[in-house]
Amino acid sequence: MPPKETRQVPRKRDEALHAMRQQQILDAAKKCFIANGFHRTSMREIFKAANISAGGAYNYFASKDDIVKALVAEENDDITWLVERLKKSRNPLKGVAQLVHDAIRYTTHDDATLAAEVYAESCRNPEVGALSKQNTAKAKTAFFIAIQRGAEQGFITKQYSAEDLSVWVLALIEGYIGQIASDPKLNSKQAARMAKISTINLLGDSV
Amino acid sequence: MPPKETRQVPRKRDEALHAMRQQQILDAAKKCFIANGFHRTSMREIFKAANISAGGAYNYFASKDDIVKALVAEENDDITWLVERLKKSRNPLKGVAQLVHDAIRYTTHDDATLAAEVYAESCRNPEVGALSKQNTAKAKTAFFIAIQRGAEQGFITKQYSAEDLSVWVLALIEGYIGQIASDPKLNSKQAARMAKISTINLLGDSV
Repeated sequence: MPPKETRQVPRKRDEALHAMRQQQILDAAKKCFIANGFHRTSMREIFKAANISAGGAYNYFASKDDIVKALVAEENDDITWLVERLKKSRNPLKGVAQLVHDAIRYTTHDDATLAAEVYAESCRNPEVGALSKQNTAKAKTAFFIAIQRGAEQGFITKQYSAEDLSVWVLALIEGYIGQIASDPKLNSKQAARMAKISTINLLGDSV
Repeated sequence: MPPKETRQVPRKRDEALHAMRQQQILDAAKKCFIANGFHRTSMREIFKAANISAGGAYNYFASKDDIVKALVAEENDDITWLVERLKKSRNPLKGVAQLVHDAIRYTTHDDATLAAEVYAESCRNPEVGALSKQNTAKAKTAFFIAIQRGAEQGFITKQYSAEDLSVWVLALIEGYIGQIASDPKLNSKQAARMAKISTINLLGDSV
């Protein structure tokens, strides 16, 4: 039976296994980067942490740079989800404010540390930098469109441009993630609350 | 005449010259880091940009790590100035808001790029990281004290803790500096204005 099945859908099975192994290596790499930083982590350590033999592992990722690129691609998936969520919000003011809240509330110290490592790498490696910039641009566009829609619908102030407000929102989120990275004891519940209140204050100003 | 003067105050003259040369190398290093990034810059390139022979230059900085540490020390000087300015403000709400404004308004794309390179290095090099953290802690304490004083004097809301508000202020400033680094076309005048308005909104809330 199994051999027959393998013959019938060999590619599909290989792809699923390949994706699973890739994720296994990515998860191990994240743990290593968070614990020791990108530069102090070797491919060998990553493969060891992933329980995969080095011989086979290079089929999944040729280099640490490829692993970082995969991490930036994961960030991109998160942003896609964010974009969809903002599109669906009936009240864009509440939608943006809640998203600001959640982005801070559910970023753990580990997540933020990893984001800082990826950011540091995006300064060093132009290819990673370009991918990171695409992510930021995508998030900014999503906020921009939601804010513009909110202004048209009367939920968001027209006192400031959608451009200026979306830069403000991005700065606040990324700034808080930096704080979470640098302080393991930061109270992210309070941080998220403050971020949400200030977003409603500014974006809802004089509506 | 000159030889006599040299004999009279030899140490002082050496120190002044030493400080001048150090600054010369630091300024050259900044230009190199901004243009090519920390990792793609060699000591040789820095010395060449500073017009100093490599033989003599190593007396001033033994390594690129020492140069980054000097850059973090410069940041520390900026923060000392900030602390003094906050102490002197009669109205701490206005003092904090103006400082948030100026920190964003007068950070050029080059400054922000350099800050990003130093930040990236602080993730990689634990010694640089420790110095950077001291700077952040110093700035945070200055904001904390000013906010607490403002609350006692009735200028700043007591609705939120001085701790939460100072984290918010730091996140906003550092977040905006990140935006300035990633977008050379960012309108820092507008950014500074938004940051100031949102600071007054949040900190002055319901006073």
